[in-house]
Amino acid sequence: MADKIYRVNMKELSFKIEDVPNHWMGLGGRGLTSTIVAAEVDPECHPLGPNNKMVFAPGLLSGTSAANSGRNSLGAKSPLTGGIKESNVGGTIAGIMAKLGVKALIIEGIPEDNSTFYHIHVSRDNVEIVQVPELVGKDNYFVLDSMEKKYSKKVAVMTIGRPGEMKMLVSNISVRDPKGKLRSHGRGGLGAVMGSKKIKCITVDAQNYKEVSYEDSEKFKAASKIFTKALQNNPISGEGLPAFGTNVLVNIVNEAGGLPSRNFRTGNSENAEAICGETMAENIKERGGSTTHGCHSGCVIQCSQTYNDKDGNYLSSGFEYEMIWAFGANLGINDLDLIAKIDALMDDLGLDAIEMGVCLGLAVDASILKFGDGKEAYRLIKDEVAKGTPMGRILGSGTGNLGKLYGLVRVPVVKNQSIPAYEPRAIKGQGITYVTTPMGADHTAGYAVATNILNSGGFVDPLKKDGQVELSRNLQIASAAIDSTGMCIFVAFPALDDPACLPALIDMLNARFGISLTGDDVTNLGKTILKTERAFNLKAGLTSADDRIPEFMKYEALPPHNVKWDFTNEEIDEFWNF
Amino acid sequence: MADKIYRVNMKELSFKIEDVPNHWMGLGGRGLTSTIVAAEVDPECHPLGPNNKMVFAPGLLSGTSAANSGRNSLGAKSPLTGGIKESNVGGTIAGIMAKLGVKALIIEGIPEDNSTFYHIHVSRDNVEIVQVPELVGKDNYFVLDSMEKKYSKKVAVMTIGRPGEMKMLVSNISVRDPKGKLRSHGRGGLGAVMGSKKIKCITVDAQNYKEVSYEDSEKFKAASKIFTKALQNNPISGEGLPAFGTNVLVNIVNEAGGLPSRNFRTGNSENAEAICGETMAENIKERGGSTTHGCHSGCVIQCSQTYNDKDGNYLSSGFEYEMIWAFGANLGINDLDLIAKIDALMDDLGLDAIEMGVCLGLAVDASILKFGDGKEAYRLIKDEVAKGTPMGRILGSGTGNLGKLYGLVRVPVVKNQSIPAYEPRAIKGQGITYVTTPMGADHTAGYAVATNILNSGGFVDPLKKDGQVELSRNLQIASAAIDSTGMCIFVAFPALDDPACLPALIDMLNARFGISLTGDDVTNLGKTILKTERAFNLKAGLTSADDRIPEFMKYEALPPHNVKWDFTNEEIDEFWNF
Repeated sequence: MADKIYRVNMKELSFKIEDVPNHWMGLGGRGLTSTIVAAEVDPECHPLGPNNKMVFAPGLLSGTSAANSGRNSLGAKSPLTGGIKESNVGGTIAGIMAKLGVKALIIEGIPEDNSTFYHIHVSRDNVEIVQVPELVGKDNYFVLDSMEKKYSKKVAVMTIGRPGEMKMLVSNISVRDPKGKLRSHGRGGLGAVMGSKKIKCITVDAQNYKEVSYEDSEKFKAASKIFTKALQNNPISGEGLPAFGTNVLVNIVNEAGGLPSRNFRTGNSENAEAICGETMAENIKERGGSTTHGCHSGCVIQCSQTYNDKDGNYLSSGFEYEMIWAFGANLGINDLDLIAKIDALMDDLGLDAIEMGVCLGLAVDASILKFGDGKEAYRLIKDEVAKGTPMGRILGSGTGNLGKLYGLVRVPVVKNQSIPAYEPRAIKGQGITYVTTPMGADHTAGYAVATNILNSGGFVDPLKKDGQVELSRNLQIASAAIDSTGMCIFVAFPALDDPACLPALIDMLNARFGISLTGDDVTNLGKTILKTERAFNLKAGLTSADDRIPEFMKYEALPPHNVKWDFTNEEIDEFWNF
Repeated sequence: MADKIYRVNMKELSFKIEDVPNHWMGLGGRGLTSTIVAAEVDPECHPLGPNNKMVFAPGLLSGTSAANSGRNSLGAKSPLTGGIKESNVGGTIAGIMAKLGVKALIIEGIPEDNSTFYHIHVSRDNVEIVQVPELVGKDNYFVLDSMEKKYSKKVAVMTIGRPGEMKMLVSNISVRDPKGKLRSHGRGGLGAVMGSKKIKCITVDAQNYKEVSYEDSEKFKAASKIFTKALQNNPISGEGLPAFGTNVLVNIVNEAGGLPSRNFRTGNSENAEAICGETMAENIKERGGSTTHGCHSGCVIQCSQTYNDKDGNYLSSGFEYEMIWAFGANLGINDLDLIAKIDALMDDLGLDAIEMGVCLGLAVDASILKFGDGKEAYRLIKDEVAKGTPMGRILGSGTGNLGKLYGLVRVPVVKNQSIPAYEPRAIKGQGITYVTTPMGADHTAGYAVATNILNSGGFVDPLKKDGQVELSRNLQIASAAIDSTGMCIFVAFPALDDPACLPALIDMLNARFGISLTGDDVTNLGKTILKTERAFNLKAGLTSADDRIPEFMKYEALPPHNVKWDFTNEEIDEFWNF
């Protein structure tokens, strides 16, 4: 049976199952969500009003046996950036959607009765929309448990906690991973969009799905084998990430002088040793837990983990570099266990670790808390943000808005979205990605750290301007295409260094669909996605003046290299000449 | 002696007195502030950072004996709108600046030691910059008293209260009026810019000034007489405004169904009778006080007043329509005395009545207070905003930011600035002004109410789209020019209806400076100012997508006429084709 578009109307509380239009056939993941958002959402609409839509779409290879193909994309107009957003996630959702034949799930409108929240249950050829007053005011794990009780452990669940219900801009949308833990559509405040539509949770039924079909299954298997080997043979995706998780980056980036610390005041953190991946792995070895954990089935990198406290009790999983950096280096908490406790709390509430962490780092400048005070950070999240007190509303609105409320100037955001864990002054290629990506400051949009710091795909000196625009452009084009396949971003490492990797990926696409894509086709797909997203943003009112680093980075030198952001506007704007 | 530019550098705590460049010679007021801001301020700078500037400039006719010529302009990049701002005010400042030969006062930079605040004293050929720790944390009347004690009652004073010190976006800059009361550079959050530069107050010394000179004083006197007569003979500026103040508008606009009420939910208020100008005038007659009061010397309209309580004790002055509408109709307080008490409090604190009032109206939607609860509104301002509590920071950030923090969709702002007291759906010409003016929603930028409602300058049906763009364009061009002369906006009424008025105004300019301006020159000046401001905004990142009414007004019909905002984007964007 051919894939279908499932379309839910929250105003009418109705649904339709539609054929996939021809021009959407070859698209998946980000390519599909961005295309649908651009086609159907008025760029000038209020992102929390009735005219915004949420579009969920598995990648083109999701549901197949290809390694690391389990990412699901969510697109919408972002209430945080005011532009188009795609945020992808692991978990079980992409595979189940693909096997159920849901090419995309589009949710539009807002209920007229907004006194309660709804649960949407998607199954083969059917959608149920029911009120769930019993879930209102509950957080993610409660919802997860309720849904597992109602259905089975196999059901895919997407849910928001209290911050999402309150339409806070730091809220995300969480999904169940294969072991019952949570992963998130993290960035851009998309939990607020789900809250605005009064949707507490979405489940996708794993019953009655069928395995995806292959036009040439032998060819697929052969290519898949090569692809998996490329992932396993690469020193980063095959060794560093499995051994230490994403948190392997703390020491590396700190040594490069690019680990933003004390609200982006230095590129080194005195806490690096206490919070680094090596310390983390040692703790896990001593305390039990596991250094490996996949965010979706079929993952061969297993960069996630299970992290226990000193007594061997579970603390958190999906405990990533960005989280540890934001709270450990930028906010200065030198206690990894406490950071893990905050991580688990934020998972349950559904908060974007980067936005919340950077916001608390800035809150030190507003005298709301002190640098390094992890207990107060925990309390602010638990007792203020989660409860929607006035202080909670302030912190829950994200870094940019906190800056506006307190008249702060050193506000590390691009397009109102917090800058992640790589200092743009010291890792300039990454800075170009932050300012130019249509997504707002986002490290995954074009991970120049690879070539600036990790010597993956060659080397471009991170402290110099030369070559950075071209590097970021190439990476962003490739990432947009990869984000359409359902592949995890870390396939970029073998893709950059192993000549067998990308052809194998393309072979898998061709074998799955019986098509004959070339490398150029994939590049053109990436370009088209970026231009579609950029066009949406321009219509939404964003301009080149939004493709800028925070002004203070232009006049404040960052230790230890004492580097400023020194790109001219013209040099940045050159990015879009392709 | 020729006029000079006084330039103060707050980083160096130094000043320079510069000759006026030739191309600024013919400019004053808004024409001069917008030209200087556009020339000297990086449109992409952080408005509260070191690269924004404040530019104060009296109008071209300020300091002369021309009636109603005492308006002073302040220009800067606005932290509220993100665009260029000009806000003008009465009081004594314009006249004193002009007589002292200060063509413009430019303030740039931020002190390196930001632990305290400064007082800038401008006198002939000198500027003193001194720390005033004793004024920190004090409000406007305290500052006024201190300065009057230090100098004389004649000294011009510009000051910020605690909200300005805290860089709140609802904060304004207040100036002393001839009777020792306060007027304000009200809109755009310019108090926050002054706060960011750590300036508590600015005084301009009235000693050693000299009367302005006239190239042809006889011609000036003759023209001035005609001009004054035009003001006095006009039914609005000569009768309605002197009798009932600006508050005469409550009944008129309410009857037209265009008085925004209950956070812009209807165009009628049940409180109109309780708060209207007629009730106010009756109270004044019964209780003492005065129905007439000029905001600057030389005013022949005297639309302000002194308003007492039931026991004859002074409550407020400068008690205007916008204030009374925002708290009386939009927030629903039906007690005029309580509104006057709030007005006096806000004068002392230095808060923009429109931004603060509309923000509190929206706060009802966020369940922060109840519709009509004036006591709570008073408390929120006095105990939260003034003290900078978390709730105070929220409300002090203005309507747009409140909306973002609470995920609200019915947010009445354009370019993040609150919409004033005329419903754009029911008074469509005024709506066109709100969306197109580079200033953010602002009624004075092109007062189409005149022709939509008051039959001044003809009649254009307020409920229909026809002719509104042209009407607003013509009014905005004229207003930009008038704002450069130092004239009060209410000269627009005779200017629209009395054929002798505008020629007399032009004759005064020619007689003062020995030039030979024509009506076309004045029109071209207005056009140039608008285009300069628009160009700044485009470079700052604003686009046509910011020239839009809040989306809810496009799908929500406004009673009693059940009208929506029905302009297409193309119709709006036509505005700039001149």
